[in-house]
Amino acid sequence: MNPVSNRFITRTLAVMAMAGALLALSAAAQESRRERRSRTREVKPIELTSAQVAELTRLANERSLSVDDLVAAAKTYMPSGRHDEYVLFSSGGQSGQVYAIGVPSMRMLRVIPVYTPESWSGYGFGVGNDVLAGGDLNGRKILWGDTHHPALSETAGEYDGEWLFIGDKANARLAVIDLRDWETKQIVKNPLTVSNHGAAFVTPNSEYIIDGGQYATPLGFGYAPIESYKESYRGMVTFWKFDRQKGRIDPSQSFAMELPPYWQDLFDCGKLASDGFVFGNSFNVELATGGVEDGKPPFEAGTSQRDTDYLHIIDWRKAEQLAKAGKVTKINGFPVITLKTSIEEGILHFAPEPKSPHGCDVTPDGQFIVVAGKLDPHVTVYSIDKIKKAIAAKSSSKTDPYGVPVLDLDAVMEAQVEVGLGPLHTQFDDKGYAYTSLFLDSAVARWTLGGSFANKHAEQPWKLVTKTPVQYNIGHLTAAGGDTVSPDGKYLVAMNKWSVDRFLQTGPLLPQNFQLIDIAAPGTTMPVLYDMPMGVGEPHYAQMIKADKLKSWSVYPGTGWNPHTQMLDPAAPRSGKEGVVRNGKEVIVNMTAIRSHFNPEHVVVNEGDRVTWRITAMEQTPDATHGLTIGGYNIHLSLEPGEFAEFTFVADMPGTFPFYCTEFCSALHLEMMGYLQVVPAAQKPVAAASE
Amino acid sequence: MNPVSNRFITRTLAVMAMAGALLALSAAAQESRRERRSRTREVKPIELTSAQVAELTRLANERSLSVDDLVAAAKTYMPSGRHDEYVLFSSGGQSGQVYAIGVPSMRMLRVIPVYTPESWSGYGFGVGNDVLAGGDLNGRKILWGDTHHPALSETAGEYDGEWLFIGDKANARLAVIDLRDWETKQIVKNPLTVSNHGAAFVTPNSEYIIDGGQYATPLGFGYAPIESYKESYRGMVTFWKFDRQKGRIDPSQSFAMELPPYWQDLFDCGKLASDGFVFGNSFNVELATGGVEDGKPPFEAGTSQRDTDYLHIIDWRKAEQLAKAGKVTKINGFPVITLKTSIEEGILHFAPEPKSPHGCDVTPDGQFIVVAGKLDPHVTVYSIDKIKKAIAAKSSSKTDPYGVPVLDLDAVMEAQVEVGLGPLHTQFDDKGYAYTSLFLDSAVARWTLGGSFANKHAEQPWKLVTKTPVQYNIGHLTAAGGDTVSPDGKYLVAMNKWSVDRFLQTGPLLPQNFQLIDIAAPGTTMPVLYDMPMGVGEPHYAQMIKADKLKSWSVYPGTGWNPHTQMLDPAAPRSGKEGVVRNGKEVIVNMTAIRSHFNPEHVVVNEGDRVTWRITAMEQTPDATHGLTIGGYNIHLSLEPGEFAEFTFVADMPGTFPFYCTEFCSALHLEMMGYLQVVPAAQKPVAAASE
Repeated sequence: MNPVSNRFITRTLAVMAMAGALLALSAAAQESRRERRSRTREVKPIELTSAQVAELTRLANERSLSVDDLVAAAKTYMPSGRHDEYVLFSSGGQSGQVYAIGVPSMRMLRVIPVYTPESWSGYGFGVGNDVLAGGDLNGRKILWGDTHHPALSETAGEYDGEWLFIGDKANARLAVIDLRDWETKQIVKNPLTVSNHGAAFVTPNSEYIIDGGQYATPLGFGYAPIESYKESYRGMVTFWKFDRQKGRIDPSQSFAMELPPYWQDLFDCGKLASDGFVFGNSFNVELATGGVEDGKPPFEAGTSQRDTDYLHIIDWRKAEQLAKAGKVTKINGFPVITLKTSIEEGILHFAPEPKSPHGCDVTPDGQFIVVAGKLDPHVTVYSIDKIKKAIAAKSSSKTDPYGVPVLDLDAVMEAQVEVGLGPLHTQFDDKGYAYTSLFLDSAVARWTLGGSFANKHAEQPWKLVTKTPVQYNIGHLTAAGGDTVSPDGKYLVAMNKWSVDRFLQTGPLLPQNFQLIDIAAPGTTMPVLYDMPMGVGEPHYAQMIKADKLKSWSVYPGTGWNPHTQMLDPAAPRSGKEGVVRNGKEVIVNMTAIRSHFNPEHVVVNEGDRVTWRITAMEQTPDATHGLTIGGYNIHLSLEPGEFAEFTFVADMPGTFPFYCTEFCSALHLEMMGYLQVVPAAQKPVAAASE
Repeated sequence: MNPVSNRFITRTLAVMAMAGALLALSAAAQESRRERRSRTREVKPIELTSAQVAELTRLANERSLSVDDLVAAAKTYMPSGRHDEYVLFSSGGQSGQVYAIGVPSMRMLRVIPVYTPESWSGYGFGVGNDVLAGGDLNGRKILWGDTHHPALSETAGEYDGEWLFIGDKANARLAVIDLRDWETKQIVKNPLTVSNHGAAFVTPNSEYIIDGGQYATPLGFGYAPIESYKESYRGMVTFWKFDRQKGRIDPSQSFAMELPPYWQDLFDCGKLASDGFVFGNSFNVELATGGVEDGKPPFEAGTSQRDTDYLHIIDWRKAEQLAKAGKVTKINGFPVITLKTSIEEGILHFAPEPKSPHGCDVTPDGQFIVVAGKLDPHVTVYSIDKIKKAIAAKSSSKTDPYGVPVLDLDAVMEAQVEVGLGPLHTQFDDKGYAYTSLFLDSAVARWTLGGSFANKHAEQPWKLVTKTPVQYNIGHLTAAGGDTVSPDGKYLVAMNKWSVDRFLQTGPLLPQNFQLIDIAAPGTTMPVLYDMPMGVGEPHYAQMIKADKLKSWSVYPGTGWNPHTQMLDPAAPRSGKEGVVRNGKEVIVNMTAIRSHFNPEHVVVNEGDRVTWRITAMEQTPDATHGLTIGGYNIHLSLEPGEFAEFTFVADMPGTFPFYCTEFCSALHLEMMGYLQVVPAAQKPVAAASE
């Protein structure tokens, strides 16, 4: 198979013939292609001969590989053309992007640009500008993001492979990615706050995308002096309504809840037994306001003084009813359920959680909520049955300073499990185990669940089983389907924050280290299989989905397809209808691209013209991508097969500007070019209209 | 080793004690760290037991691996902490960046942002803006690039591991990367043209960086109608002087040569036998100007009509003398040796090269120049001895239409080797073999060199030895040191343009496929070892350097280091001297960052103030990186250990803006934050100066 050649051969045979050249060779090439096709892998079971064992041993010793290394290599190596079993959709952290990684090979498959312009795909350089503009704050462009938590869309608590959401902590935004074409379709700005963290998390059918705050601010971008922190600053959680039909968040059907100015951290949605609830951990119930410059305790000390912070327990279905009933206050035009209303309506409860908690993860059956106390060697496990009983019994008369009822820890806690130093996040498998990342220990702890999980494993419930050291200082971890109702229990990736000596020195800025861990065997066997440097950002969370759940398009469904509307666009230039149309100073370019030329190849405009450039990629062969750039004009597009794109610019710089195809589409790719002529105002202008 | 813990433990022990917590555990953690350190790999030679062989066989069959797959896995697998042997510095194509990849594991180690802002490293979001501005065109910001050919700096024709240069085809720019800290230090815009291609290539001691054009334009950004192509359009090659001491290109010592409006393509510098020469291929000697919209032949046909194009042979040392002697014309303020002068002074010669050539590569001894005719199944090999003789003999009286002397092909050609369909680029090894990429065949051809190389291999000289199929449609290829005076002959990477079915479908936009090929064995053995998806851009060329030649810094040499000047900066805030200084509406913030707090934590300014924010990372531990963002203000920095950074903004948006550390630096990283207060103009302004 040789994808470029078919068309190229047809096209260039003429050229070759013209040159008196080598017709026979194209047949030879086709033969060679046929031969290659026939060599498609049909691997028979192997039996290693003693010579082959000797050769493997020699190679292993030459490279100082251990037997475990050979086993790990055999478990992760992907022969040419073999597809990975899982896709890891990873936050790209401060890169503002999402990265897709194949598992078990841990090969980076593709960047999906989200908050930061990315020129390979043209995002923000001709297309996607309107999507990026959705994330403007008060009209100010924000052209990067700090992506934290990706969330695959779910149906009945399972990843359905259709959509991906991800939050931007730095600017409190949320993005929607369509997994048909792997493009970002929408960015929404949270209207209440500048900083989020608990985004994105979905309800079990993706009715809502949860977007929880982090650092408290006056809601609605107001100014208030830090001295008025307790009175004027607030936390929040926003429920963004997702319209699956339109593939967009619908702000008009969305709402938020005011929360005390604790720093809400991570949320997780209840499911099955806990369906209808949302849980979130928090820290800084101390209401510390820092001020190290004035001799006060810095935030890191001020926020870490109390023994417990508050687990937030939210009844989101009741909250939705309140919002629909209009029991809201508008802040910055956005409906907010006030703390007073939440308390009166009984939709918000707290429960104590041991110190400076991080992570809040619901077990696959929805029965338990696991919170890790990052300055505590335990995870604390809450029972939804007990929570429901405690709420119904109104057993506690305690409230926090804002009047939110605080349930007794003893009344709602199922267990505490000692796992090690610096526990952060927890994932699950199919064998009744939980996995918690230990930042300070630099390890992944496997421990046993109780309840309905107790008969799935051989060990006692609520006990540490084993720890696998990782290198180093793990933040999040993610297991295959590890936060769904049915985890796969096959692979786990430790997302380590420090790599230090693991890889070659890459200057003072080092990659992170993703370590693939084999969790298929029960008990104490849990080896690290592979180290993957992550040198394109500092990811936070990731989710791992079975590859066959994704239904990606290989080409756009029709020629002239608009990826923004996901339908054929009537404005898309068609073959035979190319040309340049002028109306005063408004110029429309109707262009097509096909291997290997643009049509038209000459575009002549006057200095100062406003140019609307429309282009259709006429290809329908998978991977037959073209790029388009106009040198000097800061414009670049990637045109996947069938794609239509349109961009507009003012031709305010006179001169002769080559435009060309930037994606190596054929042997005559370098020849796929044209000239944009911007005639200086001082010269005789272009007058003729042409099509 | 647990890099975060030492400092964190010290700092948080107090917190833990305060909470009545778990002193004993920190000792346990230290013990666990010690244990891990002691497990540092001391691998003894293995002998596989029959049980181990059975287990490997079972694994292989479970995953349908062949014996060859097991061998390839053993040749490429990198155990945790083992460092790759080579670094591949790859162009990122339209991503505008450079990517560093470890070989043989083919793991992406790090992005180096060059032409496109990149928020992980903060490039273009607070730092690096001045570097990016160096690439402005007529004051217009160009915030992406189409990177093509990276060039490592050389000493005596060997990579010296100090600098990396790379060209931007879309906008004719050149960038300088310092390989001590892997940061881009300079971008220069070519003053003559909008479009280059033959950049970057270095002279054997990196005196000059070569920047050849591609699509002819009027020189100096002028406008000229396409009808005047022959008269008004020109090609060019620019020699940028590199000042190693300053680590910068010195435009004042640089010069260019005017060339006919053929499309100059790729250049390579002579070395050893051909020292002092530069060679370049070209196409479109037809002077085709396209016009498919008017029924004329499109560029792809128009440029492919003649049997031969012209190899450009340039005496750069003589050119340098002419430039120094002032025998130049200024175009757009830049010294240009005119075609007339070049012809008169005998520094430019042409030789015919078979059709639509691509690639121009000098053998390690400098004796031969290999040009691949992409519409011809041969590579054509030129001899520098013959070229010198032909020039000296003035044997040919032929000239091109611009008067450039054209040497006879027979007089300068050493050999033609039939290699296959669509030959493009050639690299070399230590065994007297050359390797040519075959775009249409989708293969890498190994063939034998003659001359002084003939005794290094067993085969006849100038013969095809073998071809390895690749998947699919290879563009460039790169071998370890494969374009230097002493190639290593160990690994070769095929940079395939199409991947089609090789990886999981990632929407309609697919990664490229880098295939690692083992070229260590002579003869017909040349297996593909590994497929690496390249899903972050469409790379062109790459260079592969032995990792031990790089002398990267692990931390900056001192605290308060300015990476732009590469020295300690007197303006860097120091510990104990933090604060906010006001002078009217000018505010200076002097901040330090250390695990895990900023100082100051409160910055209060008035709406409209111009804020200069200076920050020093006080860390000296490798990998102890902090980030800084101010939410909502589109600012992000990465602060590597010791780094000083400064950025300026107008606080024109009032409100309360959290700033925080974006790089997970310790267990109390989330607490590393502060508030920027921008007091609305309507409120009482901040008056007090403080330090």
